[in-house]
Amino acid sequence: MTAYQKLMAFTRETGALAQIAGRLGWDQETMMPRGAADQRAEETGALQSVLHARRTDPHVGDWLQAAKAPDQAGEAQLRLIRREYERAGKVPPDLANALAKLTSRAQGHWAEARAGDDFKAFAPVLEQVLRLKREEGAALAGGGDVYDALLEDYEPGITGARIEAMFARMRPGLVALRKAALAMPEVAAVTGDFPAGKQMKLARELARRFGYDWARGRLDKAVHPFSSGSGDDVRITTRTSEDDPFNCLYSTIHEVGHACYEQGIDPAYRLTALGQGVSMGVHESQSRIYENQLGRSRAFCGWLYRRMTRAFGDMGVADADGFYASVNRVHRGYIRTEADEVQYNLHIMLRFDLERALIAGDLAAGDLEAAWNDRFKADFGYQVDRASNGCLQDVHWSVGLFGYFPTYSLGNVYAGCLHEAMRQAVPGLDAGLATGDISAATGWLNENVQQYGGLYEPSDLIERACGHAPDAAPLMRYLDDKFTRLYPG
Amino acid sequence: MTAYQKLMAFTRETGALAQIAGRLGWDQETMMPRGAADQRAEETGALQSVLHARRTDPHVGDWLQAAKAPDQAGEAQLRLIRREYERAGKVPPDLANALAKLTSRAQGHWAEARAGDDFKAFAPVLEQVLRLKREEGAALAGGGDVYDALLEDYEPGITGARIEAMFARMRPGLVALRKAALAMPEVAAVTGDFPAGKQMKLARELARRFGYDWARGRLDKAVHPFSSGSGDDVRITTRTSEDDPFNCLYSTIHEVGHACYEQGIDPAYRLTALGQGVSMGVHESQSRIYENQLGRSRAFCGWLYRRMTRAFGDMGVADADGFYASVNRVHRGYIRTEADEVQYNLHIMLRFDLERALIAGDLAAGDLEAAWNDRFKADFGYQVDRASNGCLQDVHWSVGLFGYFPTYSLGNVYAGCLHEAMRQAVPGLDAGLATGDISAATGWLNENVQQYGGLYEPSDLIERACGHAPDAAPLMRYLDDKFTRLYPG
Repeated sequence: MTAYQKLMAFTRETGALAQIAGRLGWDQETMMPRGAADQRAEETGALQSVLHARRTDPHVGDWLQAAKAPDQAGEAQLRLIRREYERAGKVPPDLANALAKLTSRAQGHWAEARAGDDFKAFAPVLEQVLRLKREEGAALAGGGDVYDALLEDYEPGITGARIEAMFARMRPGLVALRKAALAMPEVAAVTGDFPAGKQMKLARELARRFGYDWARGRLDKAVHPFSSGSGDDVRITTRTSEDDPFNCLYSTIHEVGHACYEQGIDPAYRLTALGQGVSMGVHESQSRIYENQLGRSRAFCGWLYRRMTRAFGDMGVADADGFYASVNRVHRGYIRTEADEVQYNLHIMLRFDLERALIAGDLAAGDLEAAWNDRFKADFGYQVDRASNGCLQDVHWSVGLFGYFPTYSLGNVYAGCLHEAMRQAVPGLDAGLATGDISAATGWLNENVQQYGGLYEPSDLIERACGHAPDAAPLMRYLDDKFTRLYPG
Repeated sequence: MTAYQKLMAFTRETGALAQIAGRLGWDQETMMPRGAADQRAEETGALQSVLHARRTDPHVGDWLQAAKAPDQAGEAQLRLIRREYERAGKVPPDLANALAKLTSRAQGHWAEARAGDDFKAFAPVLEQVLRLKREEGAALAGGGDVYDALLEDYEPGITGARIEAMFARMRPGLVALRKAALAMPEVAAVTGDFPAGKQMKLARELARRFGYDWARGRLDKAVHPFSSGSGDDVRITTRTSEDDPFNCLYSTIHEVGHACYEQGIDPAYRLTALGQGVSMGVHESQSRIYENQLGRSRAFCGWLYRRMTRAFGDMGVADADGFYASVNRVHRGYIRTEADEVQYNLHIMLRFDLERALIAGDLAAGDLEAAWNDRFKADFGYQVDRASNGCLQDVHWSVGLFGYFPTYSLGNVYAGCLHEAMRQAVPGLDAGLATGDISAATGWLNENVQQYGGLYEPSDLIERACGHAPDAAPLMRYLDDKFTRLYPG
């Protein structure tokens, strides 16, 4: 075997083990008995040690030096394997270990603090997480920007400065749209009788219509919706709320976007470095375009209105237009995950600025709640009423995900670019959407994005698909057009 | 750290990885999407490679040489770790690899052949499995008896000769009981309306009553009932047949016996060599005593009759005695897993003799069907009608489990010993069973068997619990007493 072949065999086995780790995570959120948590932590720890040892195995370095890529895909393989190997080698094992242990504990502390609306109880833990993340970031940055080094884990090629500039360009338009919408009478949520079982049945149908391959996946309930796994075993979860059917249905469409990306990657890349979504931002672009540009479009809402009326009866809206307005209603709220397409990005900007300050050491963990509440008041115009509606609402920081939040907005930006390009390439899209047929859109996305897995760097991938570099303008055009019609003022 | 501590840390991590492998197996039988099979095979293969590498890691040998056990449990740890290490070292990696690959393929061939009742299609595959198993057995035996070496994997300390002698003592009594029972009018199965949902609800209640800890387990449906996992995550499966509620209910009680053994082991042994059932025979003793000596006892059947009448209405039996007779009915049948307590062991004796002959090379794979059918006719008095009712009914041989079958009867023998001892130690047992309270029995079993995990060798464990070495006489006394009353002839 050549060095390249040895490297590929070894990393493919590592990829298989990483899939197992993912499946364990899925199990933990869906199936695991509650009394198994401690034992599971030990099991997961053992598998993570194995993965870490393989990712830092000196053989990988030797093979990388000697390997010759046979083709373009092989070059991409080597590039991604090298990046991961170099990254893993930069973090001292003791630090990696300490981080893994701390963040697994910290998540429990966060959940407790959130349940009790008690930020003070969480602050010392967050301070510890921050200390280790700064250390990790410094080790990765090697003298460069620490926050940028953390970003690189989620969105290779991006920097904090570029995100800052992008957000600065988006902000005025979003603020204006928000202001216009909130100045008008509030659109009501749908009302009616939405039994959980019927929601799940429709969720399954929606998954199928959006292209989810049921032979290679499954849908279960979980506290937080997620998609897990790559290739031939990509599982999704959702949740139901009897008051709000959109929670279940649009979460499902969102996770189907993630899942179709993973299911749609060229099978030749399975279990290799190319065999998964290339970045968090691109991943989120798929879930967002499925959920928003397609799922919340006027055309699709016309079909969904009829389908839901058949399933649930009267929903308190006069017609499909009223339904569409309700699906896209802009209203006051504290929670990022419940925000509409306009305000969502404002939630992210707040987190981006705060986490950069936390990592830079300009904001102490203990001062986060006050800083959050001040900023929220300034951006949204009203006071956060309790920590679980404020800085304790998201799990991310407790588990060390600093640099992750902006990828949600990057996903929106990429989705905006892809949507504009797709509309040009597939003119009759709305006709299909209006009959519940999403295949033209999902086909285009598979062909232009999903199949490539990790073959191209994120911004190259978007540029290949859209004919231009990633840019917030298409998203802003789309939001302007959509929400100016919905809220003409 | 001392060598002992290093060894324990390393093997405990291996134990954690082995638990993950078990969980993957559970997932495959209960949750996995059907299209994920190939990818899963690769994932499982990767984890098995890791496990194999750890089990043969030369460090283990070094630590074993240097380690000093701190106490009795430590001595047992070293004994079991040494046994596994030496076993793993005896099998050439290429052979282990070839066996793993072949048996994973062979199971599919077996399933296909069984579905088509076509032994000829399976015979060449079985021949390949046999060749590799003989090779493996020879490597393990190092000049000793090959079948004994294979037995050692499932029941340390037992030999083919001892089993042969034990079976010879049991056989006349079993044949006489069988003859007497079949000479009488056949007892009918229960009849009625047994919806699957109600069966599952009762199965859950039975699991609780038999001591299953729901906080550390779960029950799902699967094609074949099984128990999986150790310590704090021990999952069981069952199945339902709308004609035959006992299929679901007694399978559940059986698997609860296995599961309570695993859940009941001293938590100090978790993930170590002592942290699981000590042998297949002892494991089966727990499932059998739960299912048969307790679950099919007259006292418990009285309670179950009332409980099932409440759930399902009329079952076509006159009273609790009629119900008890139906639960324990002896009737003609081809299938081991459906056999009553008397005939079950005859099914095992047939398999034991045939598999010993197969391994010894005295019987060729191609001649198995004829040999099976002749032997079945001789033992049971009627002709096998098709291969799926004959030599293709069990999966075991296809996956290389030679030496496994006799542990089922050993389990019955151990259960007989334990039951007799328990009846002496806990005089009021039937009073509890008659009210559906099994705790006195399960408490005794936990104290005398389950808590010890791998601390004692199988026969020592039984001797400590019962005051005498394992012996078939108590089982035969129990069967004689029970079935002579049921079938007085």
